[in-house]
Amino acid sequence: MRILLINPNTSQVLTEKLDEAARATLPPDVDLVSVTAEDGFPYISSRAEAHCAGVGVMDTLARLGGEFDAAVIAAFGDPGLLPAREAFDMPITGMTEAAMLSACMLGHRFAFVTFTPRMAPWYNEQVRQAQLTSRFSGTFTPDVPLGKIGEIDSDLREPLIAECHRAMEAGADVLILSGAPLAGMAPSLRGEIDAVLIDPVQAAVLQAAALARLAPQGASGGSYRRPPGKPSTGLPEALARHIARED
Amino acid sequence: MRILLINPNTSQVLTEKLDEAARATLPPDVDLVSVTAEDGFPYISSRAEAHCAGVGVMDTLARLGGEFDAAVIAAFGDPGLLPAREAFDMPITGMTEAAMLSACMLGHRFAFVTFTPRMAPWYNEQVRQAQLTSRFSGTFTPDVPLGKIGEIDSDLREPLIAECHRAMEAGADVLILSGAPLAGMAPSLRGEIDAVLIDPVQAAVLQAAALARLAPQGASGGSYRRPPGKPSTGLPEALARHIARED
Amino acid sequence: MRILLINPNTSQVLTEKLDEAARATLPPDVDLVSVTAEDGFPYISSRAEAHCAGVGVMDTLARLGGEFDAAVIAAFGDPGLLPAREAFDMPITGMTEAAMLSACMLGHRFAFVTFTPRMAPWYNEQVRQAQLTSRFSGTFTPDVPLGKIGEIDSDLREPLIAECHRAMEAGADVLILSGAPLAGMAPSLRGEIDAVLIDPVQAAVLQAAALARLAPQGASGGSYRRPPGKPSTGLPEALARHIARED
Amino acid sequence: MRILLINPNTSQVLTEKLDEAARATLPPDVDLVSVTAEDGFPYISSRAEAHCAGVGVMDTLARLGGEFDAAVIAAFGDPGLLPAREAFDMPITGMTEAAMLSACMLGHRFAFVTFTPRMAPWYNEQVRQAQLTSRFSGTFTPDVPLGKIGEIDSDLREPLIAECHRAMEAGADVLILSGAPLAGMAPSLRGEIDAVLIDPVQAAVLQAAALARLAPQGASGGSYRRPPGKPSTGLPEALARHIARED
Amino acid sequence: MRILLINPNTSQVLTEKLDEAARATLPPDVDLVSVTAEDGFPYISSRAEAHCAGVGVMDTLARLGGEFDAAVIAAFGDPGLLPAREAFDMPITGMTEAAMLSACMLGHRFAFVTFTPRMAPWYNEQVRQAQLTSRFSGTFTPDVPLGKIGEIDSDLREPLIAECHRAMEAGADVLILSGAPLAGMAPSLRGEIDAVLIDPVQAAVLQAAALARLAPQGASGGSYRRPPGKPSTGLPEALARHIARED
Amino acid sequence: MRILLINPNTSQVLTEKLDEAARATLPPDVDLVSVTAEDGFPYISSRAEAHCAGVGVMDTLARLGGEFDAAVIAAFGDPGLLPAREAFDMPITGMTEAAMLSACMLGHRFAFVTFTPRMAPWYNEQVRQAQLTSRFSGTFTPDVPLGKIGEIDSDLREPLIAECHRAMEAGADVLILSGAPLAGMAPSLRGEIDAVLIDPVQAAVLQAAALARLAPQGASGGSYRRPPGKPSTGLPEALARHIARED
Repeated sequence: MRILLINPNTSQVLTEKLDEAARATLPPDVDLVSVTAEDGFPYISSRAEAHCAGVGVMDTLARLGGEFDAAVIAAFGDPGLLPAREAFDMPITGMTEAAMLSACMLGHRFAFVTFTPRMAPWYNEQVRQAQLTSRFSGTFTPDVPLGKIGEIDSDLREPLIAECHRAMEAGADVLILSGAPLAGMAPSLRGEIDAVLIDPVQAAVLQAAALARLAPQGASGGSYRRPPGKPSTGLPEALARHIARED
Repeated sequence: MRILLINPNTSQVLTEKLDEAARATLPPDVDLVSVTAEDGFPYISSRAEAHCAGVGVMDTLARLGGEFDAAVIAAFGDPGLLPAREAFDMPITGMTEAAMLSACMLGHRFAFVTFTPRMAPWYNEQVRQAQLTSRFSGTFTPDVPLGKIGEIDSDLREPLIAECHRAMEAGADVLILSGAPLAGMAPSLRGEIDAVLIDPVQAAVLQAAALARLAPQGASGGSYRRPPGKPSTGLPEALARHIARED
Repeated sequence: MRILLINPNTSQVLTEKLDEAARATLPPDVDLVSVTAEDGFPYISSRAEAHCAGVGVMDTLARLGGEFDAAVIAAFGDPGLLPAREAFDMPITGMTEAAMLSACMLGHRFAFVTFTPRMAPWYNEQVRQAQLTSRFSGTFTPDVPLGKIGEIDSDLREPLIAECHRAMEAGADVLILSGAPLAGMAPSLRGEIDAVLIDPVQAAVLQAAALARLAPQGASGGSYRRPPGKPSTGLPEALARHIARED
Repeated sequence: MRILLINPNTSQVLTEKLDEAARATLPPDVDLVSVTAEDGFPYISSRAEAHCAGVGVMDTLARLGGEFDAAVIAAFGDPGLLPAREAFDMPITGMTEAAMLSACMLGHRFAFVTFTPRMAPWYNEQVRQAQLTSRFSGTFTPDVPLGKIGEIDSDLREPLIAECHRAMEAGADVLILSGAPLAGMAPSLRGEIDAVLIDPVQAAVLQAAALARLAPQGASGGSYRRPPGKPSTGLPEALARHIARED
Repeated sequence: MRILLINPNTSQVLTEKLDEAARATLPPDVDLVSVTAEDGFPYISSRAEAHCAGVGVMDTLARLGGEFDAAVIAAFGDPGLLPAREAFDMPITGMTEAAMLSACMLGHRFAFVTFTPRMAPWYNEQVRQAQLTSRFSGTFTPDVPLGKIGEIDSDLREPLIAECHRAMEAGADVLILSGAPLAGMAPSLRGEIDAVLIDPVQAAVLQAAALARLAPQGASGGSYRRPPGKPSTGLPEALARHIARED
Repeated sequence: MRILLINPNTSQVLTEKLDEAARATLPPDVDLVSVTAEDGFPYISSRAEAHCAGVGVMDTLARLGGEFDAAVIAAFGDPGLLPAREAFDMPITGMTEAAMLSACMLGHRFAFVTFTPRMAPWYNEQVRQAQLTSRFSGTFTPDVPLGKIGEIDSDLREPLIAECHRAMEAGADVLILSGAPLAGMAPSLRGEIDAVLIDPVQAAVLQAAALARLAPQGASGGSYRRPPGKPSTGLPEALARHIARED
């Protein structure tokens, strides 16, 4: 089975982190290929940035998706997830959604623990869109200045542990370490936190692999049926061809 | 007061329809300028199409928004609305959201009556994101083939009246005539339907005018605070400058 | 356009405050007339008081409403709003509802900031009746003794600012300064609070003006259709005639 | 134990019907006294009518309540229930609320079966205010002309049975025969309907008796604490004295 | 009227406490018989323990229920309540559900105040299953070590009062003293707490008595219709015969 | 990886059906062992039957679970799922829950299509407990007499296809073929139904395999922390030892 992991950020360092965390959990028959966004932002952290990145995600799917059994959108907040599901007939998962749904089998309430409050509003929109607010305990972020994205896991270790404890006090059974820069960090925290920790890129890859076996056509029925072809102007070339059904 | 109406579709005919319907209801001191998307789709009718159009809406706001007191995103489904609200500090309304919130003062439950079932899933996402599902009676569409977009109002008059009656039986107090091609159609139906009819482009323009008086900075606090500047690659030029805070 | 503002309290001082705040935001073509309740309570602050005042509001509408294009119920908590909507075929807005719905276009979550906790239970009933609890962050009130109603805005300035900050920490994007005695106070607070502030009497008047253009018959369909005439005993005279359909 | 049953309608015939149905189910130590509204409407059937009747209910409680252990507001729709709960420190039940909450122990979903669609919007408001919408299957009414209120039970027997079956098909486990004119009708229908039938005046009286034992002060804490005394003008005399705390 | 109170715990001391608290509130014509579980746990405090106890509850109903007009499951958390409702055609109440529904007539929001946080997850499941989360302020427990179950009421008096105050600050109008060991404790706390206190075993017995008058067949319609007989192996003998419809 | 599939019914034929359907989708490194309940019911179809079966499921986990990486409760309705999650520190999935959560990545709304209406109330309880009602379109069952459980898939093929179409019209994007007797039926229906079909035993096994990689301790934090040991009487021997923490 071949899975395509799309990092919607332009940072190659993040792609490597995500790829490494994903590989640590892969089923033995999965071949993972990770790609980095060609254009956009080094690290997405607002609604507008996420929205723009979503177009790139769809273009990558149009360019490369045909050779894969499933795809993963590997930025917390899942830019472009629902449009991609409608436009492409293959299983596509997002880090936020896959982590939330996995969490629902590991406890009743989940929380996001992340490194900056700027993300929370965008993440909350995904919880609402999935209609999972009644199982959500909130987003918890340390109140400390942020260093380099690449060093977040070492700099923020202690503050993140403190936030994990706050989230547990707020009633969360499962803590989702949110945001690509925290990928791979869960194992080193498990000893200090008496709750279930989820690494969302692992959740996203595992769910993609599961869906590829369960429903190889992905979301392709009802309100997610692929629309008829339509001409356009100004879109990235591969995406334009895909929407026109000329690919 | 100056209001910018942005048609996210590339069809100039639709812009004229929307502009005409909006003008019929304008407060006397409002100067309305309507613009058509330069790129994208003649008429948006899927999640992916709406998502791509949202980028164009933000670019138009970056190019032209500075000269206006408020803006209207004039496609039912409100492409780009929440990202635009965060990125721009001026009142911005969308046809779907403005119509729903206006409807909440004209009855308890509202329904969308529109011309093709393809739109419903995308419209429903907006109802969920606004968390208004408990006041929503559903989307009602005739089961007839669609002619030219420009002639929908004449061709579909009888089938639309039948759907209005179905929506009323389902418990809707207020009917929202959904989709830009139906703009301006409400007055001709009022005599035949014993329910409140809303033309959503009128709702969007009136709400934009009201917000420009009530809260001139628009959504600019809390989770909608404009983010700090950030560099990017590959974005439309004006939008890139705006996100970088170089405009 | 003529709008009738009804203060359901018997305090003339409050009417003047409300009228002044409303005028500061009126569209140029709106002629506003403000009236004070003839009977009832100097300042409503319980469910029973609000309920009794609602009858007076309906009687005022029966006496004076016919000469106006829209009406505003100008006490936070909206006494008599839903019954009045059903009984009268003109747009009628209330301060609480209009402020909440306007807030939904200026952020995701709103909070009420007010001067006494006695009001909160009655206000909360309006949030529930509107089914907007998922967008509500709560009611915030200073824990200080209350002076004269007429001097609340000067006495409580600092405590109210502190409550605004608490509401923001609780996740509110938009703060509604709740209760007629706070009318007109928003501009003087804007410099100190990094959130969107709404003056609810301004929201109510602006929404009334917008609805008068959008749907001149107000809530007149479905479950808000005006009932057939019915005789009664003991009601205020004009209201009895209106309900009997003898006016 | 003494229970006061207040019929908020002015029809003495209805009071007798309600009293008779209630007596058929009374615990042996309960002394029931039923009174008819002195002013208002022969039979309440709109929001405005219910609202006005609520003032009379509170005045009756102020006049007579002191001699009773609990009170019942005996019109479906519960006019004045929440304000009365706050203003009086004794158990007070309403037919709608008591029937709904009793139904929650006799099945998962309940429906209202009643004789005219005019009532549904007002009844639905009570379901929303109680936040029981997720256990509500809707209001079902025959589509036949209404004869005299006093003869509804004989005229509408067959159409009501048909509506009961429709409600069951819609998923209701428990059917509430709604509206004072249907009081006492349940036993004669039980043989024909394979669902649990509730007579709401019986539910209201039984719950009043239960609460008088369980919590003799009624709703008297938190947001239902009785407010301090306050002067007023124009209110019914006994109610004015009660609100002023001069009784 | 005869009511069967089933203590699903094996502790006879608790049965006596529950019986005594229930008797303090009984209507004069009710004959109460209290029985203790023959097998299971001295005191249930986890989901698995509650689940196992539910089978014993059903077996007791199969053995003894036929001689009673109604039954009460007297452990907070209501083990076996919904299955028992379906399997037996008589009114059956549970302490948690009866207390919650009674609380809904004594205020808007209720809270559970109990003696150990271990119970909260199981109790919360009952709130969710009843779909009453929007009226629930949470479970409040002192953070102190637990002594003997039989002495909880004296040892924990002061910590419980403190939790009652926390629950009130969190917005609860009504406090439910949760868990069989707190049965009978409410009267001694009433002087110190300005909120409505409910003893849930009293609520359960009073509701059982009310339902026995209102709907003697209990939950017997719709989704709670008793299933056809079915053979089994390994079940307690009386329960097996009841499910096989051989009793 | 070793996964234990527990059929809570006593029918060996069903175990074989479930095992076969599960094997058709297994990841290559998963070793599946399927066991049949020793006691209980040939085929569970009511709340009481499911409740009793839940005890057997926990006993099987106590007897055999220690040798496996994850377990699957293989009866639709998930008997004993939440208690088992708390009592055992390994990933445990249920057919209903796993199918619902998988469906949430394959569309917005899911429906259950099954062979007898008797199951619906019990299934609906699981949707409520998971708080997924807003994504649920209902349970659809043919109105035809039921033959032998072992022949349901051939006898009911046409009626089930008709129900699938009804579910799609009701807005479901994903259809879950519910009930163990339908295991393995999905592939033969895919050609006739233009929606996503899920075989829930496949979903449950795939999710168990995914969780075993993602969170090997299963639900073991917060409200699902395993309780301290406790003595009991009358329980199945292995379960008693497990709950006493003597295994």
